[in-house]
Amino acid sequence: MKAIVPFRRRDAKSRLKHLLTLEERERFALMMLNDVLTALSKSAIDEIEILATGDGFTEELKVEHTEVRYDDRELNDALNTAIASQNQPILIIMADIPLVTPASINEMIRRKEDVIVSPGRKGGTNALFLRKPSRFYVSYYGISCIEHLEMAVRCDMSCGLHDSFFMSVDIDEVDDLVELLIHGKDTYSARYLTDIGLHLHADKESKTRVEVIR
Amino acid sequence: MKAIVPFRRRDAKSRLKHLLTLEERERFALMMLNDVLTALSKSAIDEIEILATGDGFTEELKVEHTEVRYDDRELNDALNTAIASQNQPILIIMADIPLVTPASINEMIRRKEDVIVSPGRKGGTNALFLRKPSRFYVSYYGISCIEHLEMAVRCDMSCGLHDSFFMSVDIDEVDDLVELLIHGKDTYSARYLTDIGLHLHADKESKTRVEVIR
Repeated sequence: MKAIVPFRRRDAKSRLKHLLTLEERERFALMMLNDVLTALSKSAIDEIEILATGDGFTEELKVEHTEVRYDDRELNDALNTAIASQNQPILIIMADIPLVTPASINEMIRRKEDVIVSPGRKGGTNALFLRKPSRFYVSYYGISCIEHLEMAVRCDMSCGLHDSFFMSVDIDEVDDLVELLIHGKDTYSARYLTDIGLHLHADKESKTRVEVIR
Repeated sequence: MKAIVPFRRRDAKSRLKHLLTLEERERFALMMLNDVLTALSKSAIDEIEILATGDGFTEELKVEHTEVRYDDRELNDALNTAIASQNQPILIIMADIPLVTPASINEMIRRKEDVIVSPGRKGGTNALFLRKPSRFYVSYYGISCIEHLEMAVRCDMSCGLHDSFFMSVDIDEVDDLVELLIHGKDTYSARYLTDIGLHLHADKESKTRVEVIR
């Protein structure tokens, strides 16, 4: 089965700009992409396509046999064009979920329904399995996980949710780095953060505060 | 198998006080408890004990055959006393994870390891399976999910993580209510929030903002 991984390097992860420089953010985004590609390469997925907007970067990819398609349009347009010609089941998976595990990917793509949505926080869709991609339209942004389930119903397709914490952790804000540093010690992206001086600070007394400091 | 559900009603969910009154917060905490009890009652768990601090509330529980043990000490002391006499496997599960599903509970308690930790955001432990509870000490607060795994290693027990988004969503802050209102339409707690006038506001234009307003 094929996976499509949308990726934008240029000015990546702008909500981290108070903690990371532009160059660090772009490098960090690439490390997260490598973590997702590594998980895919250890799963039952046997073909990977990166759907990239912007400049080239293939020399920095750690996983071989990964095809790159360039499309400078916004995410939904680029993806809907990419899936329109796909007649086999595919997995669309975000490049900023570095904690994703091969086991969770396999569980998701072995489900029986036509459409499976793996939610992120705040209603995002962090991974989307489509059995009949050419008959579906994606709609990211907003509460997309509900929109994708509703789209499945409109297309007369069966659907379900995939329940994975490690897939739900998309790294957008400084608080999200807490999850990566707690759970991601074997990832490229957490090692990169550690290398440039970020670390966790847990205040046992306050009972609730765990934060990332540099 | 038995489940223990710690619960504190008095001044519950203080970080929601900007949005909910004290009475509403206490009522909301009880509705979340009822959601967790309902999920447990539909799972392979066949005995439920609420470990409560503070005043009585049993008349408001929606799930029958639930035993209540009162203990006014702090969470770790109360739990460590409660598990010291348990010689059968148990599940300790938090009362503020109303999206938890019976399937996820079953998957967790059917694992082969001695200790299984289901993480919450920021390193919390939202559910903890213990095969040999009388030989274990819990340590909540801080990055407890890592501490519980380390404790397992020290006790010479096998251990693992349970990967569930719906178990990871503990409701502490206003932002957490977003998850509940998106995914929880069949829960007592989301219906209660809707009844008192809370609803989601999604700004499709900004691409990222989904918030709860009253």
